[in-house]
Parts: sequence; C-alpha cells; structure tokens
Amino acid sequence: MNNPRVKPLGRISRNSASFAASSIYHNLQTFYYNQTLDHFNYRPDSFDMFQQRYVINSKYWGGANSNAPIFVYFGEEAPLENDFGDIGILAENAHRFKALQVYIEHRYYGKSIPFGSRNEAFKNASTLGYFNSAQALADYAEIIIHVNEKFHVQRSPVIVVGASYGGMLASWFRLKYPHIALGALASSAPILYFTDITPAHAYVSIVTKDFREDSQSCHDTIKKSWTVIDKIASEPDGLSILSKKFETCKPLNNSSELTDYLAGIYMAAAQYDAPPSYPVTMVCKSIDEPSFGNDILGRIFAGMVAYQGELPCYVNEPTKETETDVGWSWQTCADMVIPFGISNDSMFQPYPFDLNAYINDCKDEYGVPPRPHWVTTYFGGHDIKLILKRFGSNIIFSNGLRDPYSSGGVLQNISDSVVAITTVKGSHCLDVLATTKSDPQWLVAQRKEEVRIIRKWIRNYFSDLDACEKGKHR
Amino acid sequence: MNNPRVKPLGRISRNSASFAASSIYHNLQTFYYNQTLDHFNYRPDSFDMFQQRYVINSKYWGGANSNAPIFVYFGEEAPLENDFGDIGILAENAHRFKALQVYIEHRYYGKSIPFGSRNEAFKNASTLGYFNSAQALADYAEIIIHVNEKFHVQRSPVIVVGASYGGMLASWFRLKYPHIALGALASSAPILYFTDITPAHAYVSIVTKDFREDSQSCHDTIKKSWTVIDKIASEPDGLSILSKKFETCKPLNNSSELTDYLAGIYMAAAQYDAPPSYPVTMVCKSIDEPSFGNDILGRIFAGMVAYQGELPCYVNEPTKETETDVGWSWQTCADMVIPFGISNDSMFQPYPFDLNAYINDCKDEYGVPPRPHWVTTYFGGHDIKLILKRFGSNIIFSNGLRDPYSSGGVLQNISDSVVAITTVKGSHCLDVLATTKSDPQWLVAQRKEEVRIIRKWIRNYFSDLDACEKGKHR
Repeated sequence: MNNPRVKPLGRISRNSASFAASSIYHNLQTFYYNQTLDHFNYRPDSFDMFQQRYVINSKYWGGANSNAPIFVYFGEEAPLENDFGDIGILAENAHRFKALQVYIEHRYYGKSIPFGSRNEAFKNASTLGYFNSAQALADYAEIIIHVNEKFHVQRSPVIVVGASYGGMLASWFRLKYPHIALGALASSAPILYFTDITPAHAYVSIVTKDFREDSQSCHDTIKKSWTVIDKIASEPDGLSILSKKFETCKPLNNSSELTDYLAGIYMAAAQYDAPPSYPVTMVCKSIDEPSFGNDILGRIFAGMVAYQGELPCYVNEPTKETETDVGWSWQTCADMVIPFGISNDSMFQPYPFDLNAYINDCKDEYGVPPRPHWVTTYFGGHDIKLILKRFGSNIIFSNGLRDPYSSGGVLQNISDSVVAITTVKGSHCLDVLATTKSDPQWLVAQRKEEVRIIRKWIRNYFSDLDACEKGKHR
Repeated sequence: MNNPRVKPLGRISRNSASFAASSIYHNLQTFYYNQTLDHFNYRPDSFDMFQQRYVINSKYWGGANSNAPIFVYFGEEAPLENDFGDIGILAENAHRFKALQVYIEHRYYGKSIPFGSRNEAFKNASTLGYFNSAQALADYAEIIIHVNEKFHVQRSPVIVVGASYGGMLASWFRLKYPHIALGALASSAPILYFTDITPAHAYVSIVTKDFREDSQSCHDTIKKSWTVIDKIASEPDGLSILSKKFETCKPLNNSSELTDYLAGIYMAAAQYDAPPSYPVTMVCKSIDEPSFGNDILGRIFAGMVAYQGELPCYVNEPTKETETDVGWSWQTCADMVIPFGISNDSMFQPYPFDLNAYINDCKDEYGVPPRPHWVTTYFGGHDIKLILKRFGSNIIFSNGLRDPYSSGGVLQNISDSVVAITTVKGSHCLDVLATTKSDPQWLVAQRKEEVRIIRKWIRNYFSDLDACEKGKHR
C-alpha cells in the first residue's frame, strides 16, 4: 500500500440500473441554497457564499400542517447523483410516514462547489481550507432550517440518515444539533476509527477474517502470493513476466503497482461483500479452483478477473480520477485522519501506520498539515459507552460485521435509544441501499427493525410535544 | 439608549477587596497554552497560534490516581484577573472534592491575545473574525484535554462553571463537548435571549418590575423623569441647567447623554441587586426622600448619587474604555446578537429593537454584519424543554429572578439532570461569587443545593465508570 490515506470510505453502487426505473426516484426537485462559506468566523472572507444543491421529493409528504416527519439524507464524499439510484431507505419508507424527503449534497462535491469552479475551489489550501466535517454539518443545519421555513413546517421531526462518512456526519449531527434533528440512522459509520481508539490494523484484520472464514486455502494462497510476486519482480525480466501474466494495461514499473491493486480488490471485496453475489466468495472460488494446482499466480489472476470481470487489460488502467478520489484525498489531510496500517498477522504485507509520514505526505501535497486529534476533540469517541450512557439519544449505529470498517463502528447498545444494530453477514452500508427481491431474510429484518426504532422516536416526540403544549395552555 | 448593542453582560466585582486576602486565592500557577487560532478551517492562516492563559490551583487536588474532579472556570468577556477575586464557588469547594481548579481566559481578553498584540488583534474584521463563542469553546476543549495530559489525569470528571456569557459557554460546552465535561453550572446564562425566543423588551420589563416592587413611587418618579429632562433640555439654556443640576463632568451636548447614563444606572442596579446593600432599594430610598417634594430632578440626582457614591462629577466622565467594552462590542457584532428593546409599558423611554439598524451599525463599525441567527442554529434554544427532555444531562441553570437577564434564562427543570435553580431575591451571578458573612440564608441554601447536585453527577459517573470497567473485564 503506497498511500492508504487516499482510500475513500465510499459506498458501492449495487443495483441502480435495475432500480432507477422505479417510480420512487421520480418527483425529485432540485434546489440551491445560498450557503455560507465559513460558519465559524467573521472575517470578510467568511461571508463568501456558494450555491449548495439539495433535492426534495414531496410526493408522499403529508403537508405543512401534518407535522409529518422529514427524512434527510446527508450526502457523503461524492456528487449527490450517486445517491438516488442507490439509497433506498428514505424513498421506500416515505409513504408509510408521509415523509418529506430531502437529499443534501456535501460541500465541494457535485454542484456544490465554492469559489465559482472546481478549479478555483481545489486550487490550494486557502480555498480548500473550508472543506471539512464541522463546516459540512453547519451547512446541513442551515439547509434543514431553510427547508422547514420553505415548507412552512414548524414541529416536524427530522430524521437524518447517512452512510459511511455520511453516517458519521449523521450521528455527529444528532449529537451536535439535537435541536434540528430528532434522530439519526448512521449506517456503517466508523466514528471510532480515529486517533488510538481503534487499532490501525483493525480494517485489514477483518478483511483477513472474511477471507479466512470463506476459505482458509484462499486466505493462505493470498498470503503467500505477495512474496511470490515480489520474488518474480526482483528477477531479470520479472516485471514483464508479471505484466503479461496479469494482462496489465501498461508494463509494470514495480511490483507494488500490482500488489496495491490486488490488495485494493481484496479490501473492496470484503467491504462490499454483499448478497447475492458475495464478492469474497466469488474471488475465493476462483482462487481455490483445483485445476490451478501449484500455480499461485494463476490463482491470483483468476481471483482478480472474478472480481473485475473480463476487461481488455488490468492493474494500471488509464486513471479516471473521480470527484471522490480528489475530495477525499483533501479530507483525509484535514480532519478525516483515519489511521490505517497492516500488522504482521494479516493476509497482507505488513505496513505499519506512521503518523509522521502521513502528516508529511499531507504537507507535501497541500502545504498544510492534517489535525489528527480534531475529530476526537470535537466529536469525542474515547469511552463512548461511558460518555453517552447518560447523554444523547436517538441514534442507530448499523454495521455489517463483514465490512472491515465495522471495526471502527459502534457495535454495542449504549443506552435505550443509542443503539447498535449489527448483522453477521452484512457489508458496508447495505441496510440503506435500495431493496431487491434477492435480499436475504436477515437484511429484510434489519431494515424493519430500524424503521421500528425510528417510528418509536417519532411517537415519543409527539407525546413529548403534546405534553409541552398542554403545559403551555395550563 | 443610543446603542444598547454594546452593553456588556458582565458581572460586578462585589467583594474582592475583602476576599483577596483569603488563602484560597493563593497557590495560583499561571500557564500558557499554544492555541490554534482557527479550529474550524484548514487554510494556511488557520494554523496561526497564540498563547492562551490559564491558571491552576492544585492545592487541594487529590492527585493523578485519585480520579478527583477537575473544576474548570470558563473566562467570560474580561481579563482573567477579574475572576479570582470574585468567583468563589471553585475555590470554596475544591477541598471537599479534592478538586483541581482551572481558570481559563477567553480568547482576545487579558493575556490571551492573537496576532501578537491588542493593536493587531483588534485592527479590523480580518483579525477580529476569529473572536466568537464557537472558537472559544474549542479553545476550552483543547486546554482541558491538555490539562488532563499534563497532570496525567485520565478519568477525572470535569465540571465546567461559568457566569453570565461564561455561563452560556459552560452550558453550551456540556451540550457540544459531553466527552470533555461531565457537567456544567451555568450561572445567570441568558441562553434564550436570542432571535425571537425571548421578547426584546424582557430585560427592561424585569428592571421595571424590580423598581416597582421596591417602591411604586420610585418607579413612577423615574418614569416621569424622562419627559421632564427632555422638556428642560429643549428649552434655551436647558442643557446647561441640566449639566449643573447633575454635576456633569462636561457640559451636556444633548439630553440622551444624561438619560442613557441614568437608564444604565437603573439597569445595573437591578442586574446587580444583591445583598446586603440591594442597590435598587438604595437608589429608591433616595429618590423617595420626602424632603424633595415635587423636585423630580432632585430626586433623580439623589438616586444617581446613591448608586455612584460621591464623585467629583457625573454622567460624562472621561471614558476609560475597558477590555470588556471593546471586546463585547465586537462579540455583539459577530454571534452574540442579543435583541434589546424597550416597550411602552416600562419605566423607560420606549426604544423598539430594530434588527436592521443593529446590523447596519455593526457594518459601519466593523465592515462585516453580525449573524443574528447563528446562536439558535448552532446551539438551539427554541422549544428547549421539548428538545432537551430526552437529550443531554448534567446542567444547572441558576438564575436570580431580580436579574433582568433571568428573562432569557432557563427557569424550569427540563429533565432529571438538566435543572433550573432560581432565587426570588437573587441577582446576576450571585451564586458563583465568593461567600461573605452577610449572605442571606436563601443564598447559602442555593449554593448548597448546587454542590449537592454536582456531587450526584460525580457519584453517578463513578458508578457508570465502575460498570464499564467491570464490563471490560468480563
């Protein structure tokens, strides 16, 4: 792993093609909010504004006087379009709650770019400096207040939903802005993967476990493969042998181009090890294919193809850097310092986490250092069970335990209403994705449970609201 | 009232002279923390640092392994020196709790000045822009974490205490940083005096009530006096008559110089209407003096002298602008937009709150507008009982009901552990001031109750901590 810093948390588009046709994705109206660049200072520059995109679906909404809930999806490190095809939980439950649906794009992604253009916004740290989670949460606060006013809504309970980094934002938002959101569903949100709360190697430990549980021999083959590859690479003509074997798009310059690529595939397979295809099983089935005998490289290549599908070439495809790649790279050099390392006991080559190297890397790239302790200073994380036992309420932390990021998630109930929902076979953000006919029973049950809990929050809220109103009239 | 914006919340030094001799004010050690100028951005400028002062008293501290509590006083809109003589609650209770005492100075006051000098720091909005409550809270978070490390403390419960604006900060800190502070005592913190939560005229309504309750005739005399003064002022030579009558330091330029000054005295008398002298009673006694007969100006002058004491001259003394005047003036043009107005039914001349005028005034002075809605966006305030009924814990809101700022305070219990303590005869921040022998029984009882509640928080915390530790070892 050359630079694990830039690894996006991400979600993966699972079935947008099949789902995009569904009527629940119609009725979307796009708006732009005149957003404050810098919520936390009062310098002349702080008052610069930018247009932030949000999208509303009011088809199932009960109307201003109904006090019907507002479901708000918090965009993560991607353009908002990425979400409509994938995220199902708002759209699929809106009619039952008569809910207004709101999707908000994260600043510096998609159409929500400050300074007039991506070029300007991404120029240097002076313009990128406002791109961080605290500012994003304040953006969401302002837009929710604005939507309330726009739709003449006063007392509607707001439920915020987010996935992965967006899930962190959702849970943090409930903690920081309880007066704006009644509750949060934080899907696969590794809010404890900061500072020293979670070991740096926890991610790959779970990847390793996923593979070992699927197939010990597959795990062993992968574990052996790195030295095999490096050995060949070190021989004369070795790189060209590897290039040919792995059908690379360009000749390899060094073995780490290949090993990084392969490691990335195994990690993604584990992170998104979702039904019905279960990528880890798919990869391992090919790696374990009996006909390969002792041909380790043949096994590894077959695993790679099983994951990637038949392509003209592999490994060093011409880079198509996404907005997510570019944006998340900055975010990991600002507040999102997720320590990532590989210990000796994984199926990968060891790669200890080195905070100093990480910091220097950021300084080289952007001219400013990251703040590795900011997340735990601002949002907490240490002793979370002790801290939140008597503070806060109405958060669901959902995690699929096959998702390596679950290692940084909240996996135990903290209180009556700050709860953890885990699924043994679940993967990254599975619960918030659109349903499909092939969803296994445990996934259906998980979603049902989440909706049941949210319904309870809303019921309690209305009973509290009743009591308050009565108190006033007495 | 020409510019009610600049009115500091303030506390008043009540008995520092008598108390400064006490041993509890010895053993103070001053430190400086290398503080981040801008916690919320990652621009190159954001990484500028400044030295922030904090003061420690470890005389009664139980030591690193005792898990003894840490009492933290949050500096408000003044240099930190102002607090040691006045604030008693930390020092007077430290020995019972074996607590470490920490006093932190607010950024841009005293010795905690960014940009190297007050001149630079207060130059314009570019340097003043970082001077606001959200940044101050993050400062306090960093310093408390730093003190924990410095004293090798890991699991000590932290209780934050603040008075007036500092009390707002304390309560907000518990809400925003529950992982750093276990609980907050917010004395006379008008956290609801923002946006439209509290009527703009609530402050003067209480001043009026205080005077009326003390003496209806005193109230009536004051209410009548404004037209008398204005009438005389409008006559030829009227201003010089008034100047003479009120022994002004310089000839009056207009009547509002005098009426603003008088109004300020009545407001301060009500805000700090503390035992044993009870300034409102003192002022009214002079105003009501029978020998004055129909001489309204004589009555008003006597009331003024009763409050101010015998001085060489009055009203337009050579201005000695304090750090508080200068600093709070900026703060009210940033986030601290406290609507202040005077309705027809008060004992003052009407002065409706005009947000546009307020904003323009700030723009004229600093070149940037205030953000009148930021406090309610970031910290909330609307429907606080509904919002915090099932969220948050461990806050005491204490208010003296004779304090006009109590109109913006939390005066009812919100939950089992977010509680309101009010005293009918109490004034601004009385409970956190150093005790004196003349303290009335209700004040002694109030302080005792506050300490009892804080002790309960700490007890619950240790029982939760025990349960967590046991859970881990199971």
